[in-house]
Amino acid sequence: MVENSPSTSWPSPYFAAIFTSQRTGDDEPGYQAMAARMEQLARQQPGFLGVEHAHSPDGQGITVSYWASRAALAAWREEIEHRAAQALGRQRWYASYRLRVAVVERESYFP
Amino acid sequence: MVENSPSTSWPSPYFAAIFTSQRTGDDEPGYQAMAARMEQLARQQPGFLGVEHAHSPDGQGITVSYWASRAALAAWREEIEHRAAQALGRQRWYASYRLRVAVVERESYFP
Repeated sequence: MVENSPSTSWPSPYFAAIFTSQRTGDDEPGYQAMAARMEQLARQQPGFLGVEHAHSPDGQGITVSYWASRAALAAWREEIEHRAAQALGRQRWYASYRLRVAVVERESYFP
Repeated sequence: MVENSPSTSWPSPYFAAIFTSQRTGDDEPGYQAMAARMEQLARQQPGFLGVEHAHSPDGQGITVSYWASRAALAAWREEIEHRAAQALGRQRWYASYRLRVAVVERESYFP
């Protein structure tokens, strides 16, 4: 199990899906369950490396998932249950979001 | 002023500094002031595009800043007052952090 922690590391280059979102309100029914299910599903995908997330009380959220290849990241975007969750998210939970696909070139860490 | 919002956009490719951190505790004196000062300073740097951040109550934080070029991002990492803040952060505020430098290749958004 990959921890939600900044202490993980993988050989560069690898790929990041930077998902920034603004939620519509408080805990709309089903959101937490959906989020947990999507993380569980992501971890089962080929090429999954890890995920980090932070959610401010004001509804701003950032989730960054990391992938071994562009193809693995693209496959996750197209995964059928994930697509259904995305559609539901647009209907119910997200006022707005942006997904950026990026190549991680280098990193540094502390400690 | 660039908003902390997922609705901004810039021509790809551009560059992202993905900073994920775990804070040592609650609001250690000076942290909020330092964070606000660093954001103000970043906005004055050449090549700054925007910044997004989310901080969970458990101390997990993600800040992603966006830059027009690798050089602009590198210059920000080396900026003298920013370096002093980084040193202070390692002493006082962060149990751990990781900084990833990435090239944003594509993005999508809602609505």
